[in-house]
Formats: sequence, structure tokens, C-alpha cells
Amino acid sequence: MSGRIDLNADLGEGFGPWRMGDDAALLDIVTSANVACGFHAGDPDIMVETVLAAKARGVAVGAHPGFFDLRGFGRNRVQESPTRIERDIAYQIGALQACAALAGARVTHVKAHGALANLSNEDAAIAEALARAVAGVDRTLALVVMPGLPAERAGERAGLALVREIYADRAYAEDGTLAPRARPDAVIHDAEEAAARVVHMVEQRAVFTISGRRIPVAIDTVCVHGDNPQALAMAGTVRAGLERAGFTLRPFSEP
Amino acid sequence: MSGRIDLNADLGEGFGPWRMGDDAALLDIVTSANVACGFHAGDPDIMVETVLAAKARGVAVGAHPGFFDLRGFGRNRVQESPTRIERDIAYQIGALQACAALAGARVTHVKAHGALANLSNEDAAIAEALARAVAGVDRTLALVVMPGLPAERAGERAGLALVREIYADRAYAEDGTLAPRARPDAVIHDAEEAAARVVHMVEQRAVFTISGRRIPVAIDTVCVHGDNPQALAMAGTVRAGLERAGFTLRPFSEP
Amino acid sequence: MSGRIDLNADLGEGFGPWRMGDDAALLDIVTSANVACGFHAGDPDIMVETVLAAKARGVAVGAHPGFFDLRGFGRNRVQESPTRIERDIAYQIGALQACAALAGARVTHVKAHGALANLSNEDAAIAEALARAVAGVDRTLALVVMPGLPAERAGERAGLALVREIYADRAYAEDGTLAPRARPDAVIHDAEEAAARVVHMVEQRAVFTISGRRIPVAIDTVCVHGDNPQALAMAGTVRAGLERAGFTLRPFSEP
Amino acid sequence: MSGRIDLNADLGEGFGPWRMGDDAALLDIVTSANVACGFHAGDPDIMVETVLAAKARGVAVGAHPGFFDLRGFGRNRVQESPTRIERDIAYQIGALQACAALAGARVTHVKAHGALANLSNEDAAIAEALARAVAGVDRTLALVVMPGLPAERAGERAGLALVREIYADRAYAEDGTLAPRARPDAVIHDAEEAAARVVHMVEQRAVFTISGRRIPVAIDTVCVHGDNPQALAMAGTVRAGLERAGFTLRPFSEP
Repeated sequence: MSGRIDLNADLGEGFGPWRMGDDAALLDIVTSANVACGFHAGDPDIMVETVLAAKARGVAVGAHPGFFDLRGFGRNRVQESPTRIERDIAYQIGALQACAALAGARVTHVKAHGALANLSNEDAAIAEALARAVAGVDRTLALVVMPGLPAERAGERAGLALVREIYADRAYAEDGTLAPRARPDAVIHDAEEAAARVVHMVEQRAVFTISGRRIPVAIDTVCVHGDNPQALAMAGTVRAGLERAGFTLRPFSEP
Repeated sequence: MSGRIDLNADLGEGFGPWRMGDDAALLDIVTSANVACGFHAGDPDIMVETVLAAKARGVAVGAHPGFFDLRGFGRNRVQESPTRIERDIAYQIGALQACAALAGARVTHVKAHGALANLSNEDAAIAEALARAVAGVDRTLALVVMPGLPAERAGERAGLALVREIYADRAYAEDGTLAPRARPDAVIHDAEEAAARVVHMVEQRAVFTISGRRIPVAIDTVCVHGDNPQALAMAGTVRAGLERAGFTLRPFSEP
Repeated sequence: MSGRIDLNADLGEGFGPWRMGDDAALLDIVTSANVACGFHAGDPDIMVETVLAAKARGVAVGAHPGFFDLRGFGRNRVQESPTRIERDIAYQIGALQACAALAGARVTHVKAHGALANLSNEDAAIAEALARAVAGVDRTLALVVMPGLPAERAGERAGLALVREIYADRAYAEDGTLAPRARPDAVIHDAEEAAARVVHMVEQRAVFTISGRRIPVAIDTVCVHGDNPQALAMAGTVRAGLERAGFTLRPFSEP
Repeated sequence: MSGRIDLNADLGEGFGPWRMGDDAALLDIVTSANVACGFHAGDPDIMVETVLAAKARGVAVGAHPGFFDLRGFGRNRVQESPTRIERDIAYQIGALQACAALAGARVTHVKAHGALANLSNEDAAIAEALARAVAGVDRTLALVVMPGLPAERAGERAGLALVREIYADRAYAEDGTLAPRARPDAVIHDAEEAAARVVHMVEQRAVFTISGRRIPVAIDTVCVHGDNPQALAMAGTVRAGLERAGFTLRPFSEP
């Protein structure tokens, strides 16, 4: 088996004097970085530094917009109209594009964060707002989506390049969405198990639900985490597993 | 006497539920709007609405970056390195560019706000940071500067298009800077007096100091205010004065 | 008919350079002021100034805690545990108590703001968190509640002094809650109508639902608004109506 | 030699999802904790948790107010009038008092943070504002000061209980202030050296300047840090040194 695949993770999730996770170590593992844009985390200094560090390693850079909720890390659902949410997203994309320009780099993609991501996977109007924001700012930006959910359909309708992702550490419910965290088997804690699952899904071009059902999907990228040492170790194991299986790890944004 | 001139003012200086000034009335007077970008005032919704309103009246739109100081309205001097200040400015410019893109408009210029503006007129390193931020994000953006001060020189060195401005309501010290507000004659409160002064300075292509000394300068735009009814009335009087004197009011960014 | 009644309104709802409503005018009408505490509006300077202005007019001062949501003015529901919400409320009460101490005044009551108020009227766990925060900080503080809703029951269980309020400008649903704003008749816009309704409810010691049903309740205070000229005019009309009907307007906190 | 001494450190310096330092470990070393109050760090949840953890170990709790500058961690000097700064400080003290009340504890002292502390050691008007805020909120609160500087004098004039502190890791200039960090010998990096210095100063009831000059001062507490592993190790070494020298470590607030 051969082929290529991308590994993405959220980076630059500090603010002011605070940092989260070991970004330097994570950048040695992933091929695409989703950079916080100042609303739920991130500030211009962290954003430029993160882009510089990503660029130095050939890691692609994307915007990771979230709700305006620093204290809640973007986990609170902001009750705003789709139009306002579209504007919040556009603002953050533009801000990162400018920070990337200072770093001599270019933003390649957009992936929603936290409650905004959840909402865009549940509510078609929010998914449309996300797609409109991306298309309105820059039609060459790819939108990272979960296959089969509203954001994918909104991105398609907007004519955006789509990047379908699977999660390395999450089980899938029967409808292809992530199993709710309340379930005991929703989160995969064993790194080798996560790596084996990822290789299997990427090779089979499908996600497998908790009951074992196969749902065929396109898979362009695998989402890993790095906010704690265990997550970082799992990310490394997933990468090693994909490489052993013959995959080339490369940013989806590269030709 | 004939010629053309631009009138600029700061707009979009609300945040969340709060508003400042009568933007709609001010947009009927000025030809260029400096839009707050979220750090000292402004949020994405206000920014897009302000750009839409400006565009509807043919008013040019510029970024008005300030220090990250919402409560102090950007009046506090943030003690940060020039590099960090450069990144703060770039972030805000990019954010407004994205909001303008949603509104179907384009950002034409950058003008620093409050303590950031003061600092860029005093400290060459901050002036350079401002010029680097503008050039780094988009070399086609013009930089609004006070003639003879560090920001003008930094903009020149960076090869930026420069827009020289005078203030309608401020007296000039002997070195061509604004007379400090502590002086009783530093601020002009009478609208007719302000209008006559502006017409005189624009016709004479010079600022006149408190002692009456003439300092020849290029003048591309006149800064007016609209944050209270008196300021708004003065802005209207200044515009009327310039029109009576035969000047065409037009955005400097128009050919 | 005679008796006494209190009129309360939200004040001090500015932040930094921004103001909301005409607090000075409203303080001439009401007898109790609910002061924003910095999370959805208000800052220490505005808080002290508001307390000083209230004290000068003999208006009682209460804490008006809200969610940590400045941009959304506390209208977004923050998804946090009751324990965290209790801590947010306690923090704000203590902050106002200290500001009141600087002003030589004393906080007499607590009334929840915006989404926090709505949540405390729907969710018993949040109502308990509100009551625990008040009791935990200072058992002598009264809690302002809507009769018949969870916050009233939580306050009773916590042994707090309760102040029951009715709304001057809102219609009541059949269960005694406020009719949802989506209904065309939910909000009363006519000042004279509002005043007559208030007098009727206070005299009858009951709220009357849209269908005309009478629900007997204790009424200690009437909530009015002052964030726009119409609201201010209505507040004055309600006060005049109550005075004409023979009521003495006095803070509920006075003996 | 015998006697008693207090060890104080800044704690609770996280915000929202972020943490700084190993508070649990530091609480096993110090006897008084200065808790951030939400302006430069800290939020109500962190504040209550920090007070609970301190209380469980018999560590006294003080307010650590700073400037309203979360991104800059209170290191930026806010240009505000002494009256406004007084109100900012009072707000934060009251907020912590309420959080402490929820935790079943009591605030014993106040110590200014960062740029506010520096300013109160340089500018008599700010020192007076600090003392007025403490006295205005609660006259039983002690004020932590550096001997010989404006805050000490302001506290004395206000009739406050004063707690004089020395720094474990900083050299003293000839006038008894901290040597500026720009000097290569300004900061002591060796834990044993710091411990020996502290023991010497506490035994001699004096600080010793870089040139070796002895300045007699009252010493009630020693400031240590815990924001990185080295600082934490030094704090432990300083405590061990004081205990070996026969001192009893106890909160200054205990009788």
C-alpha cells in the first residue's frame, strides 16, 4: 500500500504569558498546523512565532478560528446570528493571513475550533456562515471538514477546496459522527491502538463505527493532539504507524 | 484656487453593545474613514457594518490599529518591543482587510490610533515597526502620517505611499508637532475658526505655528472628529469651508 | 390606598470609554440601582461613580452580576458548572462591595443580569448557585427574584431576604413567567399603559396574565429601564403613576 | 538564634484554560500566598481553588492586585489617575474577599503586582492610592511593602499594619531598592547562595547592598517565586535554610 496523507494539529494555543502544549515537539510530527487566531487563544506575537516555526519545518499553516471567548477557550457557544459568526471567522482568517505575511508564509486552510466547530457540524446555517467567511476572504483557502456533516456540504456548495479529516483518538457513532464523550469507549487512550485504527481507516478509505460498520469516506488528513505528553506520544505513534504502512506524510496543501 | 483634498476621521469606535459618535452623519462629511480594528475599539460586526456604510457613500476605508487596550481605548502606552508592536499592527490590518472583503470593499490606508500614533511620532523604532507592518502585509496600502515626524521618515524608507495630514482642531508647536493639550490654546473649539485655518493651511501648503511661523508641508488630508455633536458640526463646517474655497473633496486613494 | 414600593433599574452599564443610558436622569426616578460589576459591563471607575451618584440621591445600591461576556453584554449563556457560576457571582458581589466601601456606601441587594438571570429562572441548579453565592459572601444581602420561579425557591431555602419584582413593560404568560419576546404583545411600549398596569398589579398584589388571569404574588419592587429615552420616559411615568395612586417610593432596603 | 519568619509567593496566576507554575508544590513551602485577582491573571474559579488549597495547608491568603492587563500579565504601566488606580485595587481586593468567603477563609493582606508594584515604589501618589484602597476596603488588611520605599510611608500614614519584605533572589542597590535587572549581578540564580543571603539578612535584620553596605530594616516576610522548577527549588532551599537556622516558618498574619 502506498499513498500520501496529512497529519494536522492545533497549535499556538497560548495567550500573553501563558502557553499550552509543546508546540515545538508537535511541529516535528504534523504536516499541517491549525493556528489559533486570538479569539479563544493566540495573540499576534504567538501567531507569528508559530507560523515561523511551522515554516522552518515545512509544516503548512491554517487558520483555527473560534468564538470570542478567551476565558472559556472557545468552548462556550456564542448565541449570535450566522452573519455575525461569519464576520468573526473572517476577521480571524485575515488576522492570521497578515501574521503569516510577516513570517513570509501563506495560510493554506481553515479549520473551526471548539464550540464553533461543533456548531458548524450540527447547524447548517452556521456551516454556511463558515463557508461564506472562507470564500469571502480568500477562495483559495481549503476548508477542513468532517466527512458527511453540514460543514462539508456548505463547503461544497461554496465551491471551496475541501480537506476531509478523521480523528486519531475518537470512536465513531453509527451515523459517522464522533461518539459522544460521555460514552466510555468514545476516546481512544492507547497510542498503538489509535495508530492501528488510523492506518486501517486510511488504507480502507473508510471510518468504522463502534459496532464495526464501515462508512466509506475520503480521508485527506488525520487530526492529532499535543496539549499533553500523552497526546504528543500518541501523535508520534500515529505518524510512525502511517510511515511504516508506506504512507508519505505531506501537507495536503502541497501539490 | 482649485485642487482636491481628502477629509479623514476615525469611525467604528464602538464595541459589543456600545457605540461612540454618530458614524452615519460623519460618513456624509468625510472622504476617508479610519476603522478601529478590535484592539482599542471595534469588533468584526461593527467593522463590516462600518465598511458597508462607507462603501455606500464612496468613502475610502483604512485600518486604524491601536494598542491592545479596550478599557483604555488605546490610550495607554503598551511597553512592548517594536517587533511585538509590528505584529499587533499587522494582525489588525489583516483583520480589517478580511472584513472589508466580506463587504465587497478594499482597505486603502493605515493610520495609527491613540498612544500608538503618539509613540510612532516620537520613537523612530516604533515608527519603523509601523512601516514594516504595513509593508509586510500589503505594499499597496498608504500610510497616513504627520509631516516631519518619525513615521513619515519610516514610511519613506519602507517605500510606502504616504498621505500627509493636518489636524483641523489642533494648534501647532514651533517644531511642527501638535501643541500639547495642556496649553490653553492647543485645541481649537470654534468651528469657523477651524475651517478658516484649514483652508489657509491647505491653500498655503503649510502649517502655521502658534507664533505664526510658516512651515511648508505637503497636505493630502485633513483630520476631523465626530465623537460628539460639536466635533461633528466642526467637521461639517470644515468641509463646507473647503468646498467654498473651491476644493474638491475626494478620497486620496482615488486616482 | 397607601403603602410603599421600590423602583429598580440597571445602571452603570458602560465600560472604559463607553456609556449606556442616562444614569443621572434614571437615578432621579428609581429608588434602587442594580450596578454592573465588570463582567458584562462596568469597570471599577464607573462602579464607584455610580455608587456615589446613587448615594447622593438616597438610591440603594445592589450588585448586578452577569456572565463573563463583555462583547455580548452578558447575553450569551456561558456553559459552566453551577460551582463556577457561583464563584463568578461571588467575585462580582465582592468587587462591588469594595467599590461601595470606597464610596462610603453599602450594597443592599443582588439581582442577576441577562442570560444569568434567565438561566436562574429556568434551571434550579443555577438558581441554587446564585443563592449560594449571595449567602456565601454576605447573608445580609437581599436577593431580587421573580415570584414563583426557581431563584425565589433557592433564595428561600438559603434563608435569604427576598425582594419580589414585577416588570413594568412586560406581559405575563399564563404560568406567571414573562411572555416570550417573540409574541407581538410581549412588550408594552406605551408609557401610560405600563404605568396603569403597574399601579393595578401593585394595588392588587398580583400579576395579570395575557388572558387576564390573576396570579397573587408579593410585590416589593418594580423593574424599569433607562437605556434609551423612551424607556426613561416610561420609568418617569410609572413613578408618577405610583405616586398619584398614593404609594411612597422608597428603597426596599430601608426599614 | 531563634524567631519566626514568613515566606510569601504569588499564586493562582493562571487564567481560563491556562496555568502558571506548580501552585501545589509552592503551597507546601510558603506560609503566605498572594493570589491574583483577575486583572493580570486569575479568575474566580482559580481564585477559590487557590484559597481552598492554601487554607488546607494553613497558608495565609492575600490579594495580589495588578493593572487591568491580562495579555501583558500586568507588566504594562497603565496611565491612569491615582483615583482610578485606587478603584482598580479596591475592586480586586473585594473580589478576592468574596472568593475567600466562599472557601471559608479570610484575606489577611494585600501586595501589589508587577507594574503596579513598581509604580507604587516610585510614585508617592500611586503609593497613596494603594494605601487608600486597602484602608477604604478593610482596615484590618496588612499591606506588604519594601522597607524604605513610598508604599511603606503611605501605608504608615494610612495607619495600616505593614509587612516588610525582602527578596530572596534579588540584589539590593545602594539606596536599598532592588538593583535593576539590567545589571549582571541583579538576580541571584544559585539556590544555596540565595538561602544563605536570606538567613543572613533575617538574622541581621538588615539588607546588604551590592557594595556590602548594611541597611537595617524590619523584615517580616521573604518573597520567593514558583513559576518555574528552578524558582521552586530555590524556594524550598530558602525555607530549609531558615529552618536550619532555627526560624519558625509561620504566616505573619498569625498571632
